[in-house]
Amino acid sequence: MKTIDLTLDEIFSLAQTALLNAGSSEEMANIVADTVMRAERDGSHSHGLFRIPGYVASLVSGKVNANADPKVENVTPVLIRCDADNGYAPLAHARCLDKVADAAKIYGIAMAQITRSHHFAALWPETEALAEKGLVAFTCVSYMPMVAPYGAKEKVYGSNPISFAWPRKDDAPVVFDMATAAMAMGDIQIAARDGKELPSGVGLNKEGEATTDPKDIDPKTGGGMILPFGGYKGSHIAMMVELLAGPLVGETVSFETALKDNKDGGPPAGGQFILAMSPEITSGSESWDSSADALFGRLKSFDHLRLPGERRHKNRLDTGPRSVNTELVEKIRSLG
Amino acid sequence: MKTIDLTLDEIFSLAQTALLNAGSSEEMANIVADTVMRAERDGSHSHGLFRIPGYVASLVSGKVNANADPKVENVTPVLIRCDADNGYAPLAHARCLDKVADAAKIYGIAMAQITRSHHFAALWPETEALAEKGLVAFTCVSYMPMVAPYGAKEKVYGSNPISFAWPRKDDAPVVFDMATAAMAMGDIQIAARDGKELPSGVGLNKEGEATTDPKDIDPKTGGGMILPFGGYKGSHIAMMVELLAGPLVGETVSFETALKDNKDGGPPAGGQFILAMSPEITSGSESWDSSADALFGRLKSFDHLRLPGERRHKNRLDTGPRSVNTELVEKIRSLG
Repeated sequence: MKTIDLTLDEIFSLAQTALLNAGSSEEMANIVADTVMRAERDGSHSHGLFRIPGYVASLVSGKVNANADPKVENVTPVLIRCDADNGYAPLAHARCLDKVADAAKIYGIAMAQITRSHHFAALWPETEALAEKGLVAFTCVSYMPMVAPYGAKEKVYGSNPISFAWPRKDDAPVVFDMATAAMAMGDIQIAARDGKELPSGVGLNKEGEATTDPKDIDPKTGGGMILPFGGYKGSHIAMMVELLAGPLVGETVSFETALKDNKDGGPPAGGQFILAMSPEITSGSESWDSSADALFGRLKSFDHLRLPGERRHKNRLDTGPRSVNTELVEKIRSLG
Repeated sequence: MKTIDLTLDEIFSLAQTALLNAGSSEEMANIVADTVMRAERDGSHSHGLFRIPGYVASLVSGKVNANADPKVENVTPVLIRCDADNGYAPLAHARCLDKVADAAKIYGIAMAQITRSHHFAALWPETEALAEKGLVAFTCVSYMPMVAPYGAKEKVYGSNPISFAWPRKDDAPVVFDMATAAMAMGDIQIAARDGKELPSGVGLNKEGEATTDPKDIDPKTGGGMILPFGGYKGSHIAMMVELLAGPLVGETVSFETALKDNKDGGPPAGGQFILAMSPEITSGSESWDSSADALFGRLKSFDHLRLPGERRHKNRLDTGPRSVNTELVEKIRSLG
């Protein structure tokens, strides 16, 4: 794979220019470009520049509102409702996360209910932002149906990622962000692009038979489907995500979401569930961190065992340029 | 295996008598015996009479407070604190679940923080009780270390079960309740008792090598350990449970819990995290159930696919006697 070195500022500008050229408001372009730059910075490539063609497609087709103006209101003191106005999710987060954090710091727990949002990024930016304010955070979104529930041979669930973050007083938060699919769609697409085979257990072809070819698994290129991680237990968690990020927040489940999608290659509109809790209030103690730190210390005592998020936080310390796929950069430049 | 038929009333009485003879208060004996009877009724044998010798051992040793008097208070309008006073968990639930439900129905979301609780039962009784009041519910507990985190060869996590329930207007709630360990300890013990082999991937022996012998995996009989379900992703969820049911509610993580345990065979004291949400409030709609019901309908359209909780709810319709292991019944009777 041919690569080109880009500074973090150049990555931001490349994304920002593409979004502005596609008609995005300055506010939304800046916030989305920042999210994309931070993904590249942290080594989360499948949520970095790789997503820009999709972001642009949905602005051009008009599916995503280029001038979205998300509205935020308190339904109750601990329930923050955010209508994303069909804009990209990071804009909605910029407007509602502080309110969720403020409520959690007063009441111990608070929830955001986001609707009509186009979520095409990783989830750790939301949970990590809350954890950096000293809060425990959980979030999930559903997506286009691409996962067969355990025991089925048809696509029903989205890749349905979940993210959880635990704050630390003297260190970066511990954060995981993972698809409840056996593999994230972005990673399957990257494997297909790079001509790589996948491990068994990741997906099925369009007939519902096991395969290791990412092109056969990808619904767009092969009509196949991904499996949930971890058999029936992972399938239960994928179902929970459908319910939390859909009906619980007043949105649709993935297979309904697909029916309203215009298939422009960009992300469909959907819901997001965000939970924030203040461990100081919920534990009733200022030393809420000691048992958690003991656990992290124990985990770190094992050879080769990394805490979730550790690799990203280590990558982040490097403020130098990043190697980016040349073909992708040229494609993004040509979008203008 | 020799079995004996017992009516549901006889199962309740057998459990109640054993608990009373071990010194339990009438209130706690009745509530725990009811939990045990409901587990047997629903076919959840590993949480039924099978647990009574452990319940009794901890009453006799004094680890569990036979006259526990749990205290419940509102820390904030949406945060219910329950100090279980070292009693069995179902007594704490009997005193705090209604308050959590009431708060969720007003504010949309509420949380219970339970400490000093001996949880030896399934989790679905809590989530199902909340769902029967029209609430979405999630709960988790940690336990004695018996699970090796992904990539480690030592026990750090408990079996760390999670339960989630979704209410339905015209039907029983959809409820899952599962260990984040590849298999629940109770099921491994039952396999060992019945001389059965386990599938590969369930656990490691005391040297950290893969084995299918339940006796080698059981920490008590073989010094081994269970694996998390679903590889590193399941391991992340097991870690999340450690944090939610431990430090977040002001309790310890599993490996600290083990240090304060007296090893009488009964359950150690620990924390519990309970979350309840009103879908009518959080979705902003009276028809919060329609998308969820569409999803359940889609899942039911697949051959052989059961909704989580469905088998239990079907078993429940049978009010007749249940077949119980004769040796177990004799053991429980001899405890008096």
